[in-house]
Amino acid sequence: MLGDSAQINCCPKTMRVLDIIATKRDGKELSKSEIEFLIKGYVGGDIPDYQMAAFLMATYIRGMSRQETAALTMAMAKSGDQLDLSTIPGRKVDKHSTGGVGDKTTLVVGPLVAAAGVPVAKMSGRGLGHSGGTIDKLESIPGFRVELTETEFFSNLRQIGLVISGQTGNLAPADKKIYALRDVTATVASIPLIASSVMSKKIAAGADAIVLDVKCGSGAFMPDLKSAQLLAQAMVDIGTSVGRQTVAVVTNMDQPLGMAVGNALEVKEAILTLQNQGPEDLTILALTLGAHMLTLAGRTSSTEEGEQILRELLATGAAWNKFRELVIAQGGDVKTVEQLELLPQSQFKLPVLAPKDGYVAQVRADKIGRASMSLGAGREKKEDVIDLAVGIMVNHKVGDKVRQGDLLAEVHANDTARGRAAVTEVLEAYTIVSEPVISPALVYQVIE
Amino acid sequence: MLGDSAQINCCPKTMRVLDIIATKRDGKELSKSEIEFLIKGYVGGDIPDYQMAAFLMATYIRGMSRQETAALTMAMAKSGDQLDLSTIPGRKVDKHSTGGVGDKTTLVVGPLVAAAGVPVAKMSGRGLGHSGGTIDKLESIPGFRVELTETEFFSNLRQIGLVISGQTGNLAPADKKIYALRDVTATVASIPLIASSVMSKKIAAGADAIVLDVKCGSGAFMPDLKSAQLLAQAMVDIGTSVGRQTVAVVTNMDQPLGMAVGNALEVKEAILTLQNQGPEDLTILALTLGAHMLTLAGRTSSTEEGEQILRELLATGAAWNKFRELVIAQGGDVKTVEQLELLPQSQFKLPVLAPKDGYVAQVRADKIGRASMSLGAGREKKEDVIDLAVGIMVNHKVGDKVRQGDLLAEVHANDTARGRAAVTEVLEAYTIVSEPVISPALVYQVIE
Repeated sequence: MLGDSAQINCCPKTMRVLDIIATKRDGKELSKSEIEFLIKGYVGGDIPDYQMAAFLMATYIRGMSRQETAALTMAMAKSGDQLDLSTIPGRKVDKHSTGGVGDKTTLVVGPLVAAAGVPVAKMSGRGLGHSGGTIDKLESIPGFRVELTETEFFSNLRQIGLVISGQTGNLAPADKKIYALRDVTATVASIPLIASSVMSKKIAAGADAIVLDVKCGSGAFMPDLKSAQLLAQAMVDIGTSVGRQTVAVVTNMDQPLGMAVGNALEVKEAILTLQNQGPEDLTILALTLGAHMLTLAGRTSSTEEGEQILRELLATGAAWNKFRELVIAQGGDVKTVEQLELLPQSQFKLPVLAPKDGYVAQVRADKIGRASMSLGAGREKKEDVIDLAVGIMVNHKVGDKVRQGDLLAEVHANDTARGRAAVTEVLEAYTIVSEPVISPALVYQVIE
Repeated sequence: MLGDSAQINCCPKTMRVLDIIATKRDGKELSKSEIEFLIKGYVGGDIPDYQMAAFLMATYIRGMSRQETAALTMAMAKSGDQLDLSTIPGRKVDKHSTGGVGDKTTLVVGPLVAAAGVPVAKMSGRGLGHSGGTIDKLESIPGFRVELTETEFFSNLRQIGLVISGQTGNLAPADKKIYALRDVTATVASIPLIASSVMSKKIAAGADAIVLDVKCGSGAFMPDLKSAQLLAQAMVDIGTSVGRQTVAVVTNMDQPLGMAVGNALEVKEAILTLQNQGPEDLTILALTLGAHMLTLAGRTSSTEEGEQILRELLATGAAWNKFRELVIAQGGDVKTVEQLELLPQSQFKLPVLAPKDGYVAQVRADKIGRASMSLGAGREKKEDVIDLAVGIMVNHKVGDKVRQGDLLAEVHANDTARGRAAVTEVLEAYTIVSEPVISPALVYQVIE
């Protein structure tokens, strides 16, 4: 009798789900309507978790064609509310980072691009694991409201051309439900599944075009260049397939971006960068991403032209002024961003000193991220409460020459025991060698 | 933040399940303790269906080593009650068929081997889909009790050396739970999963050695010889690995076995065979399987010797007498098996006539099985009630020369409309050609 019971699934709905799972299991291609049926059924509760889990594992192992990935993306994008930005003039360009340590780029790029006259409507997330979230960072500013009504969202966007908020509405619920299931079925690290997850959210959020910052290295989800390139290419392919022009910039995340890691510390660094006094790597990355956004929006005809415009907006203070407008529009206390000592400050600052003379060969972003998280700056679990003041200032980065006793980094803590533990962790993130080290490239590749 | 949430599974139990799934996903080998952990966790309810579904799909695609398959088998065999047959003298040999159409072999082999002095304790199942079940067939005999207490089971086994019942106790609950999940996740047709499922049940039922009838062809679960051989080899390998000597006989299931398909019809044919008047194929198969059982039990030193002994037991009436003892011991009305017209009879008998002169090239077992099921002899769903009287008598088989108007088969129905529909289906199962056809081999291969 073995196996015959496979034939007793009388109900056409179950039959079809089994056929869809079997098709992917056997490495064959699914049609757009099959993928839509699957996603609708899963979100609607007709298809149980165990069938989706089998499908996700088959997809993890067998992969997906470009057409399948695009169909999956659109099915997820259409699974809930879709933000309609068509009443805002011009092409709406969204920006997304796959996540890294010290990545406060959105706080710089948003005001910068908006200052150039291109509207920026950005929905961001909270942090989880060793990556921080833009929304958490903005909450360092007293009074700043990250939860806006749809009316406020559109009103701010029309008035100052810039809004950064948490998710409004029920965007891409299929992605949310599938992501939670991937997390517990060892099916996270699949390029088509990651690519469709990112792109579905951006499309549901109303993007006409998308600039992606695909991080690569010890502090990123993609540890090696090859997988980062594959992910970037997969997302650009989706964008092309579904009529959303997409550019992916593959960037270094072996060491933290900029110097600041931790919520209020990163806001301060973003402000300094908007005042044209930021670290070079963060400034360059913001200009690079921003220039692509201007080009995709049709504001400029080349990224060189865009970078020139954006540099001027930093130099003239226009970008910094746009940030002040943002803070005011979303209820933040503007004094606190004008006098940075009014932002949350930790009680203790513990130095991390260079143990010997030499050259910095490594500042492992993952270890710095973990150290910051253990200070309370990040979440282990979704429900954890974070400490906005704590974090790490990374004073010396790869390529720097240091002398024994130099201040490599500074731990900002509100608990001395946790602070001392973090000092040890930060020290472990550093590798100091005797031979000179060349400072690494920040941008590896642009895929468009 | 993408993917970082994979790192937030803090609980060691979840961590380990994810590691196990990931190992199989990546095509690497699992240890015995990992497989035991997985099966225990799943049966105990700590591991949810969706994680097992992901694991099963990974296993379907990546396969399992011989060691892994043996470990899975034993973990499932030990997941519930285990029948202890050690108080019964001698090596206990079980027999299992992967299922086919008209397969009443157990009804013949059981009494035959028991008549040779080797105890046969057989737990059988009910039919599902187009394959019948031994337990259903035995219920054609008025009064015959297939549900026995453990005391009755052992008492009968001791007294007459033969018992055939439904499952007693909670044998291999892990297999039952996993099988149900495979059925709805498109992971049924996996050789290691099928092989471990069969073998776990046999081992839990107390078998020291096992003879397998692996069916192959249109009416079997394995449609082609190669997959049947792979399945047979996988089961023999498990037996060898876990110290249960196993012989697998790969046999033809392109056409029905014997002539009778349907519960009471098959019981009658089994009785005729035990009286040495049965169809040649069924007789040969019973002798082949029985001879291997005698050898594995240590009763004979060769299968040739075993076949000789068993032929005599058919000829002398000893096997038939053992069947009568079985019926009496399990409460059946022995008159009904002595006067076959007392067994359930259908109201109508509809002839299926040869449409032309020629040679029978095909009697598709799957189509005959479906026709019998549509008459009411089998179940579409587990809860369906079956009609014991109905079925099909296949008078002409592959190789037979027929003339137009000859009785190819006879449909036994209790409803004329369903009967007429079955006549059409049976006719479609036949292929008649003009050139002579060689009667096919019954036994393809013996793997031991």
